[in-house]
Formats: sequence, C-alpha cells, structure tokens
Amino acid sequence: MSKPIFVGLLGLGTVGSGVVKIIENHQERLMHQVGCPVQVKKILVRNIYKQRDVRVDPSLLTTDVTDVIDDPEIDVIIEVMGGIEETRQYLLRALRQGKHVVTANKDLMALYGSELLAVAAENHCDLFFEASVAGGIPILRSLVEGLASDRITKMMGIVNGTTNYILTKMCKYGASYEEVLAEAQALGYAEADPTADVEGLDAARKMAILARLGFSMNIDLEDVQVKGITSITEEDLNYSKRLGYTMKLIGIAQRDGNKVEVSVQPTLLPDSHPLASVNDEYNAVYVYGEAVGETMFYGPGAGSLPTATAVVSDLVAVMKNMRLGVNGCNAVAPQYEKQLKSPSEIFSKYFLRIRVKDQVGAFAKITTLFSERGVSFEKILQLPLKEDGLAEIVIVTHRASQKDYEEILQQLRDLEIVHEVKSSYRVEGEGKA
Amino acid sequence: MSKPIFVGLLGLGTVGSGVVKIIENHQERLMHQVGCPVQVKKILVRNIYKQRDVRVDPSLLTTDVTDVIDDPEIDVIIEVMGGIEETRQYLLRALRQGKHVVTANKDLMALYGSELLAVAAENHCDLFFEASVAGGIPILRSLVEGLASDRITKMMGIVNGTTNYILTKMCKYGASYEEVLAEAQALGYAEADPTADVEGLDAARKMAILARLGFSMNIDLEDVQVKGITSITEEDLNYSKRLGYTMKLIGIAQRDGNKVEVSVQPTLLPDSHPLASVNDEYNAVYVYGEAVGETMFYGPGAGSLPTATAVVSDLVAVMKNMRLGVNGCNAVAPQYEKQLKSPSEIFSKYFLRIRVKDQVGAFAKITTLFSERGVSFEKILQLPLKEDGLAEIVIVTHRASQKDYEEILQQLRDLEIVHEVKSSYRVEGEGKA
Repeated sequence: MSKPIFVGLLGLGTVGSGVVKIIENHQERLMHQVGCPVQVKKILVRNIYKQRDVRVDPSLLTTDVTDVIDDPEIDVIIEVMGGIEETRQYLLRALRQGKHVVTANKDLMALYGSELLAVAAENHCDLFFEASVAGGIPILRSLVEGLASDRITKMMGIVNGTTNYILTKMCKYGASYEEVLAEAQALGYAEADPTADVEGLDAARKMAILARLGFSMNIDLEDVQVKGITSITEEDLNYSKRLGYTMKLIGIAQRDGNKVEVSVQPTLLPDSHPLASVNDEYNAVYVYGEAVGETMFYGPGAGSLPTATAVVSDLVAVMKNMRLGVNGCNAVAPQYEKQLKSPSEIFSKYFLRIRVKDQVGAFAKITTLFSERGVSFEKILQLPLKEDGLAEIVIVTHRASQKDYEEILQQLRDLEIVHEVKSSYRVEGEGKA
Repeated sequence: MSKPIFVGLLGLGTVGSGVVKIIENHQERLMHQVGCPVQVKKILVRNIYKQRDVRVDPSLLTTDVTDVIDDPEIDVIIEVMGGIEETRQYLLRALRQGKHVVTANKDLMALYGSELLAVAAENHCDLFFEASVAGGIPILRSLVEGLASDRITKMMGIVNGTTNYILTKMCKYGASYEEVLAEAQALGYAEADPTADVEGLDAARKMAILARLGFSMNIDLEDVQVKGITSITEEDLNYSKRLGYTMKLIGIAQRDGNKVEVSVQPTLLPDSHPLASVNDEYNAVYVYGEAVGETMFYGPGAGSLPTATAVVSDLVAVMKNMRLGVNGCNAVAPQYEKQLKSPSEIFSKYFLRIRVKDQVGAFAKITTLFSERGVSFEKILQLPLKEDGLAEIVIVTHRASQKDYEEILQQLRDLEIVHEVKSSYRVEGEGKA
C-alpha cells in the first residue's frame, strides 16, 4: 500500500471537528479517490482539555504551532483557526517549508491572498481556499477547472447570507432595517457586532477572492467599491416594488478588455431576474464565460458542514496533485497585471429618489442636468405633494458612467429647488442577465 | 517527460471538432493539470474528405472503427458520434479491452447506462458522461465529487431547453403551443421532429441518468413517469397565473428511505420559486443533500462549446485517475438495489380544472369525493357560468397520494354532473423549495 499523506490541522472548532469527522468516516472513499491513505497527524488547539463534539486521540493535540507546521512528515496544513496576522505568519512559514495549504479564512485571503499565492507558487505548493467563499457552493473549483478553457467576463452574485436574510425580511414584511436586524441577531443569523456583514465588507472580501481567481489578477480588498445596506429604508423598498424591482446586496466583478471593476452595493434587480428570487440566507453566484455563456451556482452561504465539506474537497485536490506531481501548477497565481477601470469607464443604470420644492420649471431644471451629460430616463415616478409642500420624484436612468452620474448627483444637491437627494442605488440586469 | 496519454475519438461533428480544438489550444494547461501530455491518435469519421471547421492531420482520420477501439496504444475513447445500438457495441468492446470511455451520448446512457457502467467496473475502467446532461452545468461531477460525503435526497430541475423555451414564450406572450413551437422550429430551438423534446422523453433520459448517479441505483428510462407539454393550453396558463404559479416541465427524482420516484411532468411552481425564473433555453437543477442542504446549478442546457468543454473535463478526470492508478474506483457503478415507490407512496399537490353542470349540490358532490379520501383543498376558483351553461372550477389540493388522486379523477369523470376534466397538473415547492 502507498505511504499515507499526513495532514496537520490548525484549529479544532466546529469546522475543524467536521473535517476530522469527514476524514475518519470517508477513509475508504478518500483512498479510492486518491490512491493512498490520509491521516491527521497533529492538531493545534488553544486548550487541550476542552470538551469537544468529536473524539480525537489526545496525543494528536498540541498548543505549540511548531509541532504542526515544522513537522517534516506533515505534507498538508489545513487552516481553520481564523485570525489574520498570526495566521498569515504560520501559513507563510508552512509554505516556505514546502507544505501545501488549505484554508477557509476569507479575511486572510482577501487581505493577503496575493502574497500567499505568490509564496505558494515560489515553493511549488498548492494553496486552496474553496471554503472561504460560500462554502456550500463549489464556485472556486468551477472557476479554476470546469471553466478553465473559457474566458470569464463577469461574476455577479449574492455572497453574504446575513444581509440577504435582512433584505428578504424587509421586503417581505415591510419591516424596518433595525427591526429585522434585531430579529436576525436574536435568531443567530447576524452577529452581535454585525458591521462586517451589513457594511458590505464580508461580501467585498469574497468578491476580491472571486475576482482574483476569475480574472487571474492581483485584486485586493481596497480595489472593491463597497456600500452596505444600513441606510436602506422601507420607502426605498416600496418604490422599488412599484417599479418592479427587488433590492439585493449584489457583488459585481466585471472585465471589459483588460480593465476590471469590482464592487459590492445594494442593487435593484428586475423581479424576474433569477437572483431576485434567491432568498433568506442563501447565496448565489452568476458566472459569465465567453464560451460557456451564463452559469449560476446557488447554495447555502455558510454553515460548518458545508464549509468542512469544501475543506475536504480541497484536501482531496491537493493529495491528487501530490501523487500526480503537479502541485503548484494549477495557475491560481495571478497571470495578468491588474488594471482597474476609472469612474468614467464604469457604466450602470441608477435609481434615484429626490425631494424637490414645488416650483414651476423644477422638473425641467432637473432633466436638463441629465440631458447635458447625455443621460436619459427609463422610468419616472412623480408623486403627489407631501404635507411639507415637497414633491417626490423617482427616476430610473438609462446606462450612465459612474463619473457622469456622480457629477449629476453633486449638481442636483447644489440646485436650489432640490430639497434632498433621498437615496440612490445601482440598477442591474434587465431580462435574464 | 512522462509518456503521453493517447486518445481515440469516435465522431468529428461540432462537438468532436470542439474537443480537438480544446485539446490543441490548451495543451500546456492540460499538461499542468495532469502531469503528462495528451494526444489524439485516431478519429473515426464517415467521410475522410469532408470539409471541416477544424484542421486535422488527415492521417489521423479513419472510417474503420477498429483502427480506434482496437489500437492497443489508445488509452481513452471519446464518443461523440451519437446513435445507440452500434455505438453501444463499440463502447462495450473498448471497455472490455481496458479502455476508459468519455461519452456525451444521453440516449445511450439512459438506455444502457447500467450495463455500460457494470462492464466498466468489471474492467476497472472509468466511464464518464458529464456532457450527457446539461453540458454547460458541471452537475454530474458535483454529484459524484463535491457532494460525495453527503446523502442526496432529491433532485429537481428543468433539464430540457426546447420545452423551457416554448413554455417561457407561451407564458410571456399568451401564445398557443402550436404557434410557439412553429417559431421555435424556425429559429432552430426545436427540431423538425420535436417529439423527443415535447413529449418529455429527452428530459426523462436525463433524469434517469441523474437519478442513477445521485441515488447510486440502476434506474432505467422505463422507471421514469413521463408526461409532455403538448396538451398545455393558454387557459391553463392563465388560470395558473391568476393563482400565482408558473408552468414548467419539471423532472423530479426523490428518495424517501430506500424508495425512489422519478418523473418528468408539466408542473406548477409558485412564481417566487427559483426555478420559476429559469427562462428560455436555460437549464437548472436543484440538489438537496442531507448535509449540505439545497444547492442549484444553472446554465446553458446544450450547445457544442459547453458540451465539448464538459467532454474535456471528463477526459482530464480520466487522465488524472490513470496517473493516480485509481480508475474505476470512483463509485459510479450503482451500489444500492433499486426500489421504486408505488403510486400510494408518491405524494404531491395537484391543480385540477373541471367543467361541471350548473346543478344544485354539484359542488358538494365533488368535495365529498375528495374528503372521503382525506384530500383537502388549498385553493379554489369557481368561475362564472359560460355560454354553454357549464361552470368551471379550478382546485389546488393539499398533498395527496398519486393513487388517491387518480382514483378521485376517475370517479370525477364518472360523475353525471361533471362534464369534463379539462386538465390536471402537479404542483410543487411552496416557498423556496
């Protein structure tokens, strides 16, 4: 029988325990896939004596990270401990010693993915991170393998479960953001400090990872334009409903020629758009390839079992590559130089809600601002006077550059007749895409 | 450098040409994935002198199949010639000589998949057929690999592009089946003889393949209950719209305990169901796993480029397995004994449209038939009298067994007050699933 492959685990929380269980329970299956046995040799934990929901031989546990990452017999490090700076040092050290790495750590990969991938490539090591983006969806592997012979032009999706849960409930029950957030926290769908989710940061990290892989460029977190969902009001949702739209927090990574844009923003989608019916805590990612066309992956965004399953899939891929002698070859290190679009190269439709003073010619002044820049309207909703004597106007524009649109917004705010720009959102995808 | 892997191709139509192009253009990439070169050694064609849209060394072409399947140097046979009986013989002969097989032939796999898989297993050969079901969606690989540590309980999807195109247009434009079919034929979305598509047979083949793989049972085409879309009327679509449903041709493969059901039927889905917004020629398959929960794959159902891409992905998997020495291990041969549900074990909601004579107590007689079998109503629509003095009643039932429902249908037809049972459809998936 072939020599076993030895694995070292950093972390033994719910995901780590899941990984240990799957490796134990599927030993024969793994053997059949890879052609040799696999064995967990050392596990880094904080507390050796803690009660756990998985039975582990106590001699495998250690509180000293060097027992894991410096063990010459260990071939693959699985990182499920979380954290950024310390974890980064551990993984760099492991890679430099020629160990392959599987990680579920999206914060780390979003911030230091470019560095880690470069060091992995230098050392002919695999660095896989399927579990870092929507664990229940095999999206990264599909980008790398299935669509390998294709050129990806756009990825668009719902990649954060918490915000999708909140927006779904707001739309469905007409409840306010604050009410739904409180309920989501009570149910455990949102964390006590929800900032990373509701400000769009978690989604931005995932989009950076997707864009880096899909476009093979060193996209960093700071390259992602981010806007969260905290200022979305029930009124915004009511107006969008009347116009036939559903509000979602949408990440978009798009390539035109050699230039790319990556963003996460609350976005209005036509009700008939497939992403409009992705509800609750589910995630879905559209991928547009030049050859294959439109494909979509839909599934649970998180959860310890989907995440552990994704980690083990990565482990299997590493082990196969070891036996094939092709580690580090799977072009995951960025191949193209990063070129970001400028605001004049990013195009979109926009939804805009403004309150204006009820004066003769007010509407003409507004439309002039748009027409001067060649931006026309697709839909207009002019609403009856409110008690305060202000009229409300809702506009959906045709496609405009971000630069033009932002300048128009600024000029609108400066107009004497404009009382307030209430809200403004991106509008995407007419028809099926 | 490692010894190359030699491939023999049966067929050089659009898919075959695509395969040749991808292998040529991605030689370096393939080398990096597999660790050795790959080379097409012989190609079976009908006419060596035919003009083709791919450049091939003429010495590779042959009209004698034995040049391909009996060549001891050839390791892998790629079958993209279509056909059933003859093709089956070729592939059996290739497998018995220890050659691995990749096929895009869904007709063959639906009819003889069980036999071919058994012979492949006996000879420790791989037999992969990703391209046979929705080429643009890596669904089979995901079933086998990604969800390997999971138990699949249900697969449900739109797996035929032609019928989905027809139903989408009928719903959208209120056009009749005949009009839309004629248009689809003119545009090349439907074949001159559309029988296999519109009678649900093509979808049934794919569901048999999915069920066999997902449940690891010898599901055959004859185990699939099939109903096509030819009798769907504009009235049916109008009524379902009023009740908040969208009509789709839906394949369902479901396992409860050790028993399974597989069917393809026109089915009403709530408008909010994700499959309800899969439009035009697109396909989508939901997979429910005990561990991972709900995942969905969406993409183009056919097309020569997606199909060729799927074939090459399979080829890469075979070659990796060859180098790993694990061919034939990837439990694709059915492991469980097939147990089909009886009609009393298959449950569903139903939509029913009947015309009744306007007599006192007519409605009571009808409801009695249902209540005697414990079947209650979820929705009822009683419509004004028509000119012919008949009243129309539309009923959506709560869940009932197929046996009970069919007996009720029979008794309804026998009732003197019932003029006609106009139509009856399955209703699936409230909420998100």
